[in-house]
Amino acid sequence: MRGAVLYGPRDVRFGQRDDPKILKPTDAIVRMSATCVCGSDLWDYRGINKLTQPTPIGHEYCGIVEEVGRAVTKIKPGQFVIGSFFACDNTCPNCQAGYHSSCQHREFVGGAQADWLRVPLADGTLVATREAPSAELIPSLLTLSDVMGTGWFAADAANVKPGNTVAVVGDGAVGLLGVLSARQMGAGRIIAMSRHESRQKLAREFGATDIVTERGDEGVARIKELTNGIGADAVLECVGTQESMMQAIRSTRAGGYIGYVGVPHGVALDGQELFFAHVHLHGGPAPVRRYLPHLIDLVWGGKINPGKVFDLTLPLEKVAEGYRAMDERRAIKTLLRP
Amino acid sequence: MRGAVLYGPRDVRFGQRDDPKILKPTDAIVRMSATCVCGSDLWDYRGINKLTQPTPIGHEYCGIVEEVGRAVTKIKPGQFVIGSFFACDNTCPNCQAGYHSSCQHREFVGGAQADWLRVPLADGTLVATREAPSAELIPSLLTLSDVMGTGWFAADAANVKPGNTVAVVGDGAVGLLGVLSARQMGAGRIIAMSRHESRQKLAREFGATDIVTERGDEGVARIKELTNGIGADAVLECVGTQESMMQAIRSTRAGGYIGYVGVPHGVALDGQELFFAHVHLHGGPAPVRRYLPHLIDLVWGGKINPGKVFDLTLPLEKVAEGYRAMDERRAIKTLLRP
Repeated sequence: MRGAVLYGPRDVRFGQRDDPKILKPTDAIVRMSATCVCGSDLWDYRGINKLTQPTPIGHEYCGIVEEVGRAVTKIKPGQFVIGSFFACDNTCPNCQAGYHSSCQHREFVGGAQADWLRVPLADGTLVATREAPSAELIPSLLTLSDVMGTGWFAADAANVKPGNTVAVVGDGAVGLLGVLSARQMGAGRIIAMSRHESRQKLAREFGATDIVTERGDEGVARIKELTNGIGADAVLECVGTQESMMQAIRSTRAGGYIGYVGVPHGVALDGQELFFAHVHLHGGPAPVRRYLPHLIDLVWGGKINPGKVFDLTLPLEKVAEGYRAMDERRAIKTLLRP
Repeated sequence: MRGAVLYGPRDVRFGQRDDPKILKPTDAIVRMSATCVCGSDLWDYRGINKLTQPTPIGHEYCGIVEEVGRAVTKIKPGQFVIGSFFACDNTCPNCQAGYHSSCQHREFVGGAQADWLRVPLADGTLVATREAPSAELIPSLLTLSDVMGTGWFAADAANVKPGNTVAVVGDGAVGLLGVLSARQMGAGRIIAMSRHESRQKLAREFGATDIVTERGDEGVARIKELTNGIGADAVLECVGTQESMMQAIRSTRAGGYIGYVGVPHGVALDGQELFFAHVHLHGGPAPVRRYLPHLIDLVWGGKINPGKVFDLTLPLEKVAEGYRAMDERRAIKTLLRP
């Protein structure tokens, strides 16, 4: 089959890869309907995460089940399925608590920018739609595999409640879908922090009521200004740098909540500052599996259209251009069609 | 009046200090019925917090109101009152949200190891009991000024729910009262981490079901062993060191809660470890004022007896010995009687 392999910094190559096979009886093979490039793929692409060897890349996927292992009982060939970047058994105590991305048997699902994908623990990991979706729904359904589930988790971890004032740090696809999620959860005011016009526009479309273009201490001062000096009730941290994390902590009111989903890179939190900030902090890799059934319903019923984050669609073989466009911030998010 | 002054590391002197006066119309002067030495006083006593000048010390207090400023309308001379170490107005948005220790007008109340104390923002800060308490109730009521309120906040911040498995890091007075608080909140299993026999005994009396004597990685391994490899639902961090904080984080299950109330000293949290730990983190200076009415009821009704943490009672003039006994861990907590 064809697929993308990352060889080193900014070196994505598209070519032949071995066809995936059922390796364990709990596996499934899925033929990709669509896949995409994630903001977190850019950590690898930019060489911030070091690779030890050429690595098949991509972890967002949806498509048609081709084949299942003999222990798979719920998922059937022919079904349209969506799954998370962490395979899970959906039965262990961590899954039962809703933390599927900390499943005791979790496996990272890598190499999704390809024609087919092997998904471990298929019965636990994959959720099938009731029927094959129309072509227009596929981009939105694809986002549920990671980016939309992650934005939703950010808002959920930040305990967004009806009427809340919410600030979103980060105007990447996750941040934008964090805006959409906060709106769905009934936030009264949603402040998107963005200095890019196209992203501001989408943020407003998703429900942002205010835009703050300042960053760092100035950004914090603006949030305080907009909230009578108190800070936001809920802040979604969707970047993962020291600056963005401190911006989130300092923008939150005493007793407020931060949901952080940007994978931290070089972040160290000072215990005493955090202590006196009086904030609630929760985050981590989004337990996408927990949210899949509900989010599929919202997409299917036309209540949300998270697929709008894809402002670039390319055939799979142009995957390298998809990375370049996101790296240079020419595109918010690239959808790839095999 | 007489009072304690800290001159430098391990140098507490007892002697004459100026009588406190009404400085602002919102002040009250309280005659101490009892005061005590806090674990956090030891950070100063040990020279870990640097002093710039000789400093009146102590911040836990209860007693009889002697005099009030002309703007004080609720608190009356003659009432028995308890207040927090942070004075608050009880009306600002942070107070209304329950975070009185982040009051927009907060002032630290220092110098309580003395005959009298000036308390700012008296109407917001002080809570009066319905009548003068009996002598036996005074130690327990005194704990509500900080140590019991702080243990309660640790359990509340750790979201302790009926049936939960709770671990408590730290066997000082706060940790022990964290055990008592978790029991009041209906925890099913309470694991106290302690290697001191007298403290283990009190922990059991307060409701601990298990004792873990190991610390650091071994302590974490023991908690995992006791929880089928998953970790505790709620962990109370009642120390404030890097080791205790990491012990708390690593002992918590994915999706579990940490309430941290030990004032962090030299603590830095690695963003990526925290991210993958998947825990909820909340803490800070306890909003004691929020809990005072409820905790007074519990003490008054004989439901809790937090005064048991005082295993040494001295006349106020022996305050220096009270510090020494706690510094050397000969005493859990010292009560001082003026």
